[in-house]
Amino acid sequence: MKLIKGFSKLNRDEKIRFIQTNMPLTGDLAHTLKTYRHPQQQNIFDEFSENTLSNYYLPYGVAPNFNINGQIYVVPMVVEESSVVAAASRAAAYWAGHGGFNITIHNTLKAGHIWFQWSGDSTTLQNELPALKDHLINAIKPLTQNMEKRGGGIQDIRLIPQPELPDTWQLQVTFKTADSMGANFINTCLEAMEKPLTVYLEDKDLPAPDVIMAILSNHTPKCLVSCEAHCAVEALTPYAKGETPQEFARRFKLAMDIAWHNTDRAVTHNKGIYNGVDAVILATGNDFRAVEAAGHAYAARDGRYRALSTCNITPEGQFHISLTLPMAVGTVGGLTRLHPLAALSMDILQQPTAEQLMGIAAAAGLANNFSAVASLVTTGIQNGHMKLHLSNILNSFNASADEKKAAQTYFADKEVSRLAVKEFLNRKKSE
Amino acid sequence: MKLIKGFSKLNRDEKIRFIQTNMPLTGDLAHTLKTYRHPQQQNIFDEFSENTLSNYYLPYGVAPNFNINGQIYVVPMVVEESSVVAAASRAAAYWAGHGGFNITIHNTLKAGHIWFQWSGDSTTLQNELPALKDHLINAIKPLTQNMEKRGGGIQDIRLIPQPELPDTWQLQVTFKTADSMGANFINTCLEAMEKPLTVYLEDKDLPAPDVIMAILSNHTPKCLVSCEAHCAVEALTPYAKGETPQEFARRFKLAMDIAWHNTDRAVTHNKGIYNGVDAVILATGNDFRAVEAAGHAYAARDGRYRALSTCNITPEGQFHISLTLPMAVGTVGGLTRLHPLAALSMDILQQPTAEQLMGIAAAAGLANNFSAVASLVTTGIQNGHMKLHLSNILNSFNASADEKKAAQTYFADKEVSRLAVKEFLNRKKSE
Repeated sequence: MKLIKGFSKLNRDEKIRFIQTNMPLTGDLAHTLKTYRHPQQQNIFDEFSENTLSNYYLPYGVAPNFNINGQIYVVPMVVEESSVVAAASRAAAYWAGHGGFNITIHNTLKAGHIWFQWSGDSTTLQNELPALKDHLINAIKPLTQNMEKRGGGIQDIRLIPQPELPDTWQLQVTFKTADSMGANFINTCLEAMEKPLTVYLEDKDLPAPDVIMAILSNHTPKCLVSCEAHCAVEALTPYAKGETPQEFARRFKLAMDIAWHNTDRAVTHNKGIYNGVDAVILATGNDFRAVEAAGHAYAARDGRYRALSTCNITPEGQFHISLTLPMAVGTVGGLTRLHPLAALSMDILQQPTAEQLMGIAAAAGLANNFSAVASLVTTGIQNGHMKLHLSNILNSFNASADEKKAAQTYFADKEVSRLAVKEFLNRKKSE
Repeated sequence: MKLIKGFSKLNRDEKIRFIQTNMPLTGDLAHTLKTYRHPQQQNIFDEFSENTLSNYYLPYGVAPNFNINGQIYVVPMVVEESSVVAAASRAAAYWAGHGGFNITIHNTLKAGHIWFQWSGDSTTLQNELPALKDHLINAIKPLTQNMEKRGGGIQDIRLIPQPELPDTWQLQVTFKTADSMGANFINTCLEAMEKPLTVYLEDKDLPAPDVIMAILSNHTPKCLVSCEAHCAVEALTPYAKGETPQEFARRFKLAMDIAWHNTDRAVTHNKGIYNGVDAVILATGNDFRAVEAAGHAYAARDGRYRALSTCNITPEGQFHISLTLPMAVGTVGGLTRLHPLAALSMDILQQPTAEQLMGIAAAAGLANNFSAVASLVTTGIQNGHMKLHLSNILNSFNASADEKKAAQTYFADKEVSRLAVKEFLNRKKSE
């Protein structure tokens, strides 16, 4: 392979030809990529990103029977991992019969920062804050007035020194962004404040700030949602797999407690939560990197990385599960309306507000978490997983319905691998 | 909307009809979903997940000119966020001219645990460990021998009490999994060890363990990759945007130091790294939830959530950037060969080993990180971002080439929103 100048200026066919002619490939790149483009709407997807050659397909599925705050949803989920949608659906149906998922929105505050160095006296700077605050808010009024009409806007401005770095400060601006995720809005506001900040201090004959950067924070511990569900321990019999529901509940709670205390376990526990959360985030055109970063940093908020969900069993025999996580999402702006399938998801979710979407994604997370832990403390997860994996492999070999059936029986007690399945199919064919 | 029983047993058309007839939708769901299915290969994607109705499209693009350990790559990237591929490409081309990205694989150890309660004496248990270890390794030999031929297998077994929970232990098993991510292999091995563990202790007339769960850990601080790049400070002129390269380097390093010390900034800093990492993870059929969870937990390893990358400027005027993060990925197994576009990515990457893929994804992360911080400390990020966002919105209104050009000029100094663009286009049309 060789270096190339001006690649981004080539048209799509030229880009593909460059790759095809400069490296050995096993297939016809141009042909394969073509079959994954949309016949009418490809230009929309091309423009979301750069050097776009085609589309990557992720399965678009739905999990029905989510009862969230008393409303029934069919939840669109985009995920490539088998059993995530099935697990969400099973848990949703169970909890719909036991009062559903209850959502609490704790707050929807987001923050951004102008980071600057300032050589003056820190008390002097802090004393200027009230007037500086008014100055900055007025200076960018033209940018915020539409957001204010929608119930958002700037909520507060603070000045915070960074103790480890000399003369280094953050001007912390907190925002509400209504039904948009708000990244563009926040960044636009912050960048527009840089000059007024400088002007203000210069007008007071104070040293000018050396602005280093202005950017939103994806750490959103005050944009927080909780999802809770509960039932009588007795009602857990369908999950107990031959044990008593009390024994199931005890084992379930112990598994949750382990994930609270132990980071090795917490990481996988939370990963299972995000299997559900991210599937909704993707399906609605939101940014899963932002949601993941916020969530995992929140999981480490007390200095040890812990589980985001907890379980509690009351002396009266009530079984409670609860998940609390930060989530900055939008239902307007970004790709939420521009991506045709994200728009479709919003339609299937009946045009939710951002707060409703926070609840839906949290419920998907708790549903997946419940299913995963319930499997882990009873049958284990490999049975189900490997059955689905076998099905994927059989499809990749274009196995017939008869061959699939025979393989499911044969591999019931054997290790599934691509090689083993291939050999099995060859033996079948030569029989 | 209403609840439904047996939804998963319906065929695809029936599922779509259920949604279409039970809720008000603005469009023809069946028709829209159909246009996103693959004409020949849809059954492959259907089987990856459950209740699959169609595919979600994410732009499939490439970033050329990655020089990684001296080899030139065109890196496939799957991401819906504008400017990620462009930023990766720009940084890759720059660093290719300055020695490229240098990768160090620190180790590729993964771990899984059997969690159990045990009421016996803890010293007695620990004393059994050497013999227990042999017993467990032998018991599952049939499952591990293929992996051993590929250079992987069980590396160690330890017994670790969980201090906060009475009588609760983890049997920690460490693995190497060669070129597979290894989740299925590890989980299969762990579940297969449960019975031999019980049998061993019973044979010694010791209390039986109460096995709670057996599962891999996605916390992989010993499956770790570093990516480094360096150049003379003088060589940074192309990024300095009118400042001296020394001043650019100073500001860049300060921004990196802020992200090391301040969690609010670190979360967004790392989010920018994962913009690049996840784009490669997705393009190669790997599991981004696993990679994200591992990375962010690692970022919090010393009790404060910090940046994953650092910058250093030597007295001799060398500028160094470096990124270290855990990454459990595979280039065989899972979807890496089953997903046709993941298989294509492996082809474009010239069939990398898992260790090579760790390096490629880390380089994409560091490339995006470098571009983002370089923009932040000079021009800011909103200019570029909003231009791309405007382009997306214009496309959604099917704007003509002339209209697009006029809009780019008009919005150069104005806030971009869907409404503002719509009004602009209406004015243009009525001119």
